[in-house]
Amino acid sequence: MIERARQLDAGDPLAEYRERFLVPEGVIYLDGNSLGCLPKATPARLEEVVREEWGRDLIRSWNTAGWIDLPAKVGGKIAPLIGAKPHEVIVADSVSVNLFKLISAALAMRPGRKVVLSEPGNFPTDIYMIEGLEKRDLATRRLAARDKLHEALDEDVALLLLTHAHYKTGELFDMGELTRAAHEAGALVLWDLSHSGGALPVDLNACEADFAVGCGYKYLNGGPGAPAYAFVAERHLEDTQQPLSGWMGHAKPFAFSDDYAPAPGIERLLCGTPGILGLSALEVGVDLIAETGVERLYAKSQKLSEFFRQCLAESGVEIELVSPTDPASRGSQLSFRHEEAYAICQALIARGVIGDFRDPDILRFGFAPAYLHFEDMAEAARHLAEVLESNEWQSNEFNKRATVT
Amino acid sequence: MIERARQLDAGDPLAEYRERFLVPEGVIYLDGNSLGCLPKATPARLEEVVREEWGRDLIRSWNTAGWIDLPAKVGGKIAPLIGAKPHEVIVADSVSVNLFKLISAALAMRPGRKVVLSEPGNFPTDIYMIEGLEKRDLATRRLAARDKLHEALDEDVALLLLTHAHYKTGELFDMGELTRAAHEAGALVLWDLSHSGGALPVDLNACEADFAVGCGYKYLNGGPGAPAYAFVAERHLEDTQQPLSGWMGHAKPFAFSDDYAPAPGIERLLCGTPGILGLSALEVGVDLIAETGVERLYAKSQKLSEFFRQCLAESGVEIELVSPTDPASRGSQLSFRHEEAYAICQALIARGVIGDFRDPDILRFGFAPAYLHFEDMAEAARHLAEVLESNEWQSNEFNKRATVT
Repeated sequence: MIERARQLDAGDPLAEYRERFLVPEGVIYLDGNSLGCLPKATPARLEEVVREEWGRDLIRSWNTAGWIDLPAKVGGKIAPLIGAKPHEVIVADSVSVNLFKLISAALAMRPGRKVVLSEPGNFPTDIYMIEGLEKRDLATRRLAARDKLHEALDEDVALLLLTHAHYKTGELFDMGELTRAAHEAGALVLWDLSHSGGALPVDLNACEADFAVGCGYKYLNGGPGAPAYAFVAERHLEDTQQPLSGWMGHAKPFAFSDDYAPAPGIERLLCGTPGILGLSALEVGVDLIAETGVERLYAKSQKLSEFFRQCLAESGVEIELVSPTDPASRGSQLSFRHEEAYAICQALIARGVIGDFRDPDILRFGFAPAYLHFEDMAEAARHLAEVLESNEWQSNEFNKRATVT
Repeated sequence: MIERARQLDAGDPLAEYRERFLVPEGVIYLDGNSLGCLPKATPARLEEVVREEWGRDLIRSWNTAGWIDLPAKVGGKIAPLIGAKPHEVIVADSVSVNLFKLISAALAMRPGRKVVLSEPGNFPTDIYMIEGLEKRDLATRRLAARDKLHEALDEDVALLLLTHAHYKTGELFDMGELTRAAHEAGALVLWDLSHSGGALPVDLNACEADFAVGCGYKYLNGGPGAPAYAFVAERHLEDTQQPLSGWMGHAKPFAFSDDYAPAPGIERLLCGTPGILGLSALEVGVDLIAETGVERLYAKSQKLSEFFRQCLAESGVEIELVSPTDPASRGSQLSFRHEEAYAICQALIARGVIGDFRDPDILRFGFAPAYLHFEDMAEAARHLAEVLESNEWQSNEFNKRATVT
């Protein structure tokens, strides 16, 4: 397998990009879908922001270093990765906070309708943000399984809120088809791109999506807790009224008026003062992913995951795949079910193979193709085979659960 | 004046702390109330967080580096600066977002009352966040001038929301007296400490305050757009239901349940994934301010501002002071009114004296005593006298307004 892996690496046009990231010695990192690796250019850029822009130029950097425009600038760089126009995307706050803004905005655009439709088992924060509005009697949460979504789309639905690539299984929704169905039912659509933006080609405008949010710290390699992004289709910009109407979303923040007037464009999604350290780190990650190109990344991640499955099969590993078997139907990840998933995950981590565990029984491997080689696949498969065969995961050491996994 | 300044510096127990900050050569920085200076320890700490915690240890750092506990840890360090218990304070999001959470929570705790009372000319974001709720019919905004607040506190008021030290004038509210008055009227109180936390002794619990928010990038020196903090009095923790119910505020975030259950303590104020770079930089700033001690800082800032006024008087400068003349009635700043405030501010900046301008006619100087010397006061006063006397501010160059000032 190793020989075949090396041949694949030799023919991989993206192989060289691994050098642009710090991938620690002795680690096979299959968790880039949870926290992306550090781009080698990031520390120097942050040092510059800290020592020069903050330390030396101080308050003046809001103008001279362009801090004030950074949320729109980085948003504009994310836009082409998700099929958006630059002025339709902005970086701000967290995914959760942006969900709240856009769910609220959508509800205000559909008076008389209160239902926000999602699926059970969606990433929890998506569902919780609906609940926050429901407790104020501003929304009604409705959850319907994937195959029941169409019939659940009735005249009460204001918004369909779905995660494009499922966090647990990687299964993709057909964005175009579901957006059409929602529109036919008179509803708006909000796509959570946390597990697809920067990993695979997304074309929000071709699908006529209304709203989207996405994560900065997974496939965009923006660092732990990096700020998130939000998309509003151009046709809705003027009508998008979000309740977190902080001063940075004001048309004239520095007029210090007592009355709120939203900025004319996507800046109206801003709320408080943007975090410049996080934004600056995110910009480096976005630049790097934009350079590699999402089409090439996705093509490679499909090859990586298929090769990983092949290696497992050849090693005689039998473990239940919960991700779609067709690579075109999933994001850049593979998830397996095993009742001892937690302990197996810990045993792999002890061997330097970092995947993650998702309660209660899912072993999840992300294939961030910008810094993974095919050789990593062969090695990871070998380790998984050895762990399962040796039963080393049954050791007590691997059965104590830590806070975060 | 310079001689007297040097004597004062020689007797100042805080003088040595300037060495712990990077204060650029040739700059007299009187804008620490807008963006605090860079602590010299910050770049190395960030380098460690980026290269080791993120780059080398990757996802494991949520446990091994304690990222998951960082919001509560840094909040616990801010607590003694504002008269709170460690488990009553958490770092999260921005001041604006935290205002939204706590205004909403307060309204839910006062059913039948909808008015949120504030003053006109409060920092705009405080007022705008009330508006965001008012547009959803969840709140009614009421603004009453300082001397009319008592009579405006009627049985419709759910919450009194005030900024302790006014951003424009530095004037302080009597926190204890107003909190009592609000409670007598059956209302709750939310204090915005953005211009007082870390600058002067605040005693939330002695005043029986209910809620508070504050800023990380001013007197706490956390860096541009640093995350903010929020306080909930222990007696309210269990009843505080905030609508931004993201996954990090869940009692068991990693159970990935479809149903939201708030964390039992202050963690319920968390929403999305915390930004670790910003939090880590803030921790360094907080540690440094905690070491200097807010009592000593405030005593020095009062001496600095009084000495500055003396220097101005001795230089024959006549300019209208809009801050209280009694130093005990103001925060660590002095603001002056001049119809050409903008151009004067620009002319001072060109000379290396950085204060700021607040629309339409306010020239604002902040005295962050951890890194200012009395000699800076004498020099700044001399520059202001020269600028006013020479009329150099009338040059065209200083009359073009930039985006941010």
